[in-house]
Amino acid sequence: MNPSPKAVVLLSGGLDSTTTLAIAKRQGFDCYALTMQYGQRHAIEIDAAVQIGQRLGVTRHIVMPIELRQFGGSALTSDTPVPKDRSLDAMSTGIPSTYVPARNTIFLSFALAFAETLGASDIFLGVNALDYSGYPDCRPEYIAAFEKLANLATKAGVEGASFTIHTPLIAMSKAEILRKGIELGIDFKLTTSCYDPTPNGLACGRCDSCLLRLKGFAEIGMCDPRGYV
Amino acid sequence: MNPSPKAVVLLSGGLDSTTTLAIAKRQGFDCYALTMQYGQRHAIEIDAAVQIGQRLGVTRHIVMPIELRQFGGSALTSDTPVPKDRSLDAMSTGIPSTYVPARNTIFLSFALAFAETLGASDIFLGVNALDYSGYPDCRPEYIAAFEKLANLATKAGVEGASFTIHTPLIAMSKAEILRKGIELGIDFKLTTSCYDPTPNGLACGRCDSCLLRLKGFAEIGMCDPRGYV
Repeated sequence: MNPSPKAVVLLSGGLDSTTTLAIAKRQGFDCYALTMQYGQRHAIEIDAAVQIGQRLGVTRHIVMPIELRQFGGSALTSDTPVPKDRSLDAMSTGIPSTYVPARNTIFLSFALAFAETLGASDIFLGVNALDYSGYPDCRPEYIAAFEKLANLATKAGVEGASFTIHTPLIAMSKAEILRKGIELGIDFKLTTSCYDPTPNGLACGRCDSCLLRLKGFAEIGMCDPRGYV
Repeated sequence: MNPSPKAVVLLSGGLDSTTTLAIAKRQGFDCYALTMQYGQRHAIEIDAAVQIGQRLGVTRHIVMPIELRQFGGSALTSDTPVPKDRSLDAMSTGIPSTYVPARNTIFLSFALAFAETLGASDIFLGVNALDYSGYPDCRPEYIAAFEKLANLATKAGVEGASFTIHTPLIAMSKAEILRKGIELGIDFKLTTSCYDPTPNGLACGRCDSCLLRLKGFAEIGMCDPRGYV
């Protein structure tokens, strides 16, 4: 019997990346988790990601600290306030201040390095272009350009490997993601999506990320098991 | 008078990136240096880069530590010995063990983040495809793919910016790079190219990087001012 193919899964500890990991497992991949610690306001996400990785049975989990606060340029990596109480209309207009310059390019380049050292050709990323189209590096054309780059960038690519960036959630609504996660047995209590949690780990309930999450739970008629302020 | 346009220059402290910085300055750019500290065997390169940045008058210098040793996969980021005493023929065949998986993709993605926060569209990288064609991420087609990605990846790109990755050395021989550096007044004593220097900063004289450097100096009939073992 062939061993399961290895895959690198970018795991933030949010519900999207957790569902993505569960999908990769269900597809039969031997999963290696990569969590980027990039100067977020709180380290709660990292603890959540580590716990989720253990619970879902990843083979190895790397937490990679990077100091994006040296650059700033985002409400998530500086002391600019995170926007609160925005309407869905406001969220779907323009690119929000929580955009982190080149974040997914940095994340995917580390995932590519990890994959190449593992001899893996598959990378999973939980981006979503439907519910929240504000981030340029969540679009299908961006993902396609990164795949092309990956094959040119690497020894593995030169030697014939063909990297695939899997984005199973890219066209799903938050409600569809939640249904998929429930089908795969995820305990969403473990996941944390808030951009601005309290020091003891409660979600604010008012940032874009909380509002989209709560809307998703409302649409499927479920209570979000996550603790809120 | 318009202010000088800003540029991000990836500066390792080697002679290629130092010459690239001098070229960017000569072209009139207001230069911001970015030095990636990626788990090399010695920190001597970092000290060299900082000194060079000061000497050449960069506006700001960021040293960004990243833990590529967590991945390994290269003689430069693990305890695998660096190859020594290789012939030029051997160097021009295949990809050497000093290849670091996805290194330039990681470096350029940080440079892109830095550039976007500065409002800069220009990034300088001292890669060279002629004297040393073993690394896939030094090829012109790779650079072109990264430029395309950068425009799709960023808020700046969506808003109409067009990023340029300048690689002024890509088609130059080491001798040509040295002549250009001398013309621009670089003191090559400050630069360090060795993959495996001694703890007190002497170059080994036997790794691929030292051998190519020494060959370049021999071709222009000059003594390398750098200290060797």
